[in-house]
Amino acid sequence: MENRKEDFSKWYNEIVEISGLIDKRYPIKGMNILMPYGLKISQLLDEHMRKFCDQSGIEEVYFPLLITRGQLEVEFEHLKGFESQVFWITRGGTDKLEEELSLRPTSESAMYPMFSLWIRTHGDLPLKIFQLVNVYRYETKHTRAFLRDREFHFFEAHTAHATFDEAEEQISQYIDIWKKLAEVMCIPFVLHRRPDWDKFAGAQYSIAAETVMASGRSLQLATFHQYGENFAKPYEITYSDESGESRFVNQTTYGMSTRLIGGIIGTHGDDRGLLIPPDIAPIQAVIVPIPSKRDPVPYANKLKGILESAGIRSRVDSRDQYTPGYKYNDWEMRGVPLRIEIGEREVTGSTATLVMRTAKGRKTVAESELANEVLNCLAQVKQKLTESAAEKFRSMFTTASTLGGIKEARGAASAIWCGSRECADKVEQETEMTCLGNRVDIQEEGNCVVCGSHGKLATFSRTY
Amino acid sequence: MENRKEDFSKWYNEIVEISGLIDKRYPIKGMNILMPYGLKISQLLDEHMRKFCDQSGIEEVYFPLLITRGQLEVEFEHLKGFESQVFWITRGGTDKLEEELSLRPTSESAMYPMFSLWIRTHGDLPLKIFQLVNVYRYETKHTRAFLRDREFHFFEAHTAHATFDEAEEQISQYIDIWKKLAEVMCIPFVLHRRPDWDKFAGAQYSIAAETVMASGRSLQLATFHQYGENFAKPYEITYSDESGESRFVNQTTYGMSTRLIGGIIGTHGDDRGLLIPPDIAPIQAVIVPIPSKRDPVPYANKLKGILESAGIRSRVDSRDQYTPGYKYNDWEMRGVPLRIEIGEREVTGSTATLVMRTAKGRKTVAESELANEVLNCLAQVKQKLTESAAEKFRSMFTTASTLGGIKEARGAASAIWCGSRECADKVEQETEMTCLGNRVDIQEEGNCVVCGSHGKLATFSRTY
Repeated sequence: MENRKEDFSKWYNEIVEISGLIDKRYPIKGMNILMPYGLKISQLLDEHMRKFCDQSGIEEVYFPLLITRGQLEVEFEHLKGFESQVFWITRGGTDKLEEELSLRPTSESAMYPMFSLWIRTHGDLPLKIFQLVNVYRYETKHTRAFLRDREFHFFEAHTAHATFDEAEEQISQYIDIWKKLAEVMCIPFVLHRRPDWDKFAGAQYSIAAETVMASGRSLQLATFHQYGENFAKPYEITYSDESGESRFVNQTTYGMSTRLIGGIIGTHGDDRGLLIPPDIAPIQAVIVPIPSKRDPVPYANKLKGILESAGIRSRVDSRDQYTPGYKYNDWEMRGVPLRIEIGEREVTGSTATLVMRTAKGRKTVAESELANEVLNCLAQVKQKLTESAAEKFRSMFTTASTLGGIKEARGAASAIWCGSRECADKVEQETEMTCLGNRVDIQEEGNCVVCGSHGKLATFSRTY
Repeated sequence: MENRKEDFSKWYNEIVEISGLIDKRYPIKGMNILMPYGLKISQLLDEHMRKFCDQSGIEEVYFPLLITRGQLEVEFEHLKGFESQVFWITRGGTDKLEEELSLRPTSESAMYPMFSLWIRTHGDLPLKIFQLVNVYRYETKHTRAFLRDREFHFFEAHTAHATFDEAEEQISQYIDIWKKLAEVMCIPFVLHRRPDWDKFAGAQYSIAAETVMASGRSLQLATFHQYGENFAKPYEITYSDESGESRFVNQTTYGMSTRLIGGIIGTHGDDRGLLIPPDIAPIQAVIVPIPSKRDPVPYANKLKGILESAGIRSRVDSRDQYTPGYKYNDWEMRGVPLRIEIGEREVTGSTATLVMRTAKGRKTVAESELANEVLNCLAQVKQKLTESAAEKFRSMFTTASTLGGIKEARGAASAIWCGSRECADKVEQETEMTCLGNRVDIQEEGNCVVCGSHGKLATFSRTY
């Protein structure tokens, strides 16, 4: 396996395949097969999002994959933003279709004609829905698994509100949901308000959450968009208010993709391989029986039963053709948070020996304490992942007070920026680093590193 | 709402929408929006299938939606079977694609090129995978929600085995899984071995499970296909056996679609509306607070908490604008198995009044007994649904010993058939009823109702 620090990109491309997340040999570029292990991580992430949305009163729906050209053409800015990215169906069987159909690149244009039917009065508001679907983008640039795919898994929440202020409140709620998910993934992040020229096609403004990978490049993980009335007007989504007057709704969206998995790989991986945060690990504890005079497999299966009853996802690796040492390396590479070794001593003494993926050393515990000890270890792994990710993340942020300082940054650079496109372009020309926008969490002011006029704290970095 | 018996078809078309399963106003024919209630039923069915597959060692994967023309053309019979059904993508953005891409109509041609890479030796067998995805068929016939859609949810299991016998054994295992799911859905069925001309494109033989709807038409719910080496040869899926010799694998598949939901609606619905089997009901018990001097909502919410702890899916309907009577009708129409009424008497006495969707009468139980009593009621509803579905099903089967007898059948007709296409076609011309094939569960022999020569028990019916 590639050394992670020396060539992060090579390491990444290799680990996604050898760890059993995906198979890249599918004959269409940018479309990969999700293998059982990779699919399960994705499904566990989905489960968390479903729970958070349910708690927040956002209901799950499913809108069709196909969107007519007519639907897509309603909002011009939006169409323009996606025109080069859309796959077009022109034939059904041998019939030429009367109207071309696109594969959803995102679902505004599928959903909003229905919003205009569903919403009649203020009593129908707020309307809050989400879906977890795959979307399709005809990327012609270099594709990369989980980071730039042509087919990828997508979370999209869409809401409609009576007033702009209520839509603003919704954006805050989105950010609260996002924080819970970031906690599950043990991923540190910062929030930026995107420069106007880089906001979502059709949005009034866009906020993005990003992390920085070991390569020094930033990775956008989630976006929150305030649409105001921008879509309500062309799609004619109106409601009658308390006094019977017709008004346009205010809309928001929240989007995330399989990039989350890319972020998890890049944030927690090391030279031994993946490291999957316990809350989304398909296998939280792998039980490895060590062959001896007494067959350890029945006892290993018994322990698996105990863990299952406690809601812990585990597997017994009873493959004959591999040594215990091979299995240790294999599961470490695949990022299983905890290993449980079962040898003769454990079988005889009704114990189990626990080894965390994030720490050196072993701990032998009694069978009766197993479930509690495992839960305790998983909590420790989670804390350790969170802490070391935060430390790496901080080391990836340089504060720069000059253009030269930005240029020298190993990862992302924090610097004051006046807000003008000219100054952002100047930084990009000199440093190849993009302006991610102003920080949302920190309100620091000062003089622009480029032109010296008044500005606010922003982040510059190379991006995925 | 339409009277179910008088016009089943109208009743069906209306109930799928007013019960909140789908919205049919999406602008593409045969593609509907799954509303939260309908989507949840689909997801609960999926969860059961995941559990059954897991128990049976069949692993979940995800293969890309798009399949190249080249992949699809490998197996000629298969392509021929789907050619008129495929949606074709010919453009990406404004670029004409070098090779046209199809939306998966089913995934043999996506998966089997990978099987030929994954399988090397007998140690790699059996290979057993499944996926739960949407598939796309350019149906030009009349579409109908859940029964004939252009986009529909699909379960497909694919296995590869060293020998034909092992593949046969797999078909038996599929049928065992299917029986578990039929039990969950409370749906009676019979198994037929399809006539040769009606088997799946590329299969050696196909077995189908079907039920009969109140309209008298049979509905195919699940299919099990024995491919033998039919796909292994064109896709070159070989393994080296114990002696090092190269052999073709033997393959099977198991398919099911959203037709399951159509089957549930048609089997259990009545003049009051839907009736959802408890194991897949999004809301197993709806709690309706009845306004009185003491606000019943806090107590209702407390009961919801008790039910949640016991793993029971419930909802408190605290909508202000509707009367309790309206709510009773509404949830009956939507098929919730159990209603819990909370009035002043219940609040004061710390009790709850239970009303099953399948029985007359109320039962008041103590709060401390609530969870057990609800579970007990849900089990009773399930049993009642199973029994009455079985009774209706039996009444839909007529045994016929003459062609005239088949013609007179209200639903499906059981009759002896010699196995020839000529005799099946004759039946169809005279009765408009299709030969579903020989019964798999009953081995009855006799004289063909058409030609009088030796034959076996078969079923004839109009179909969906």
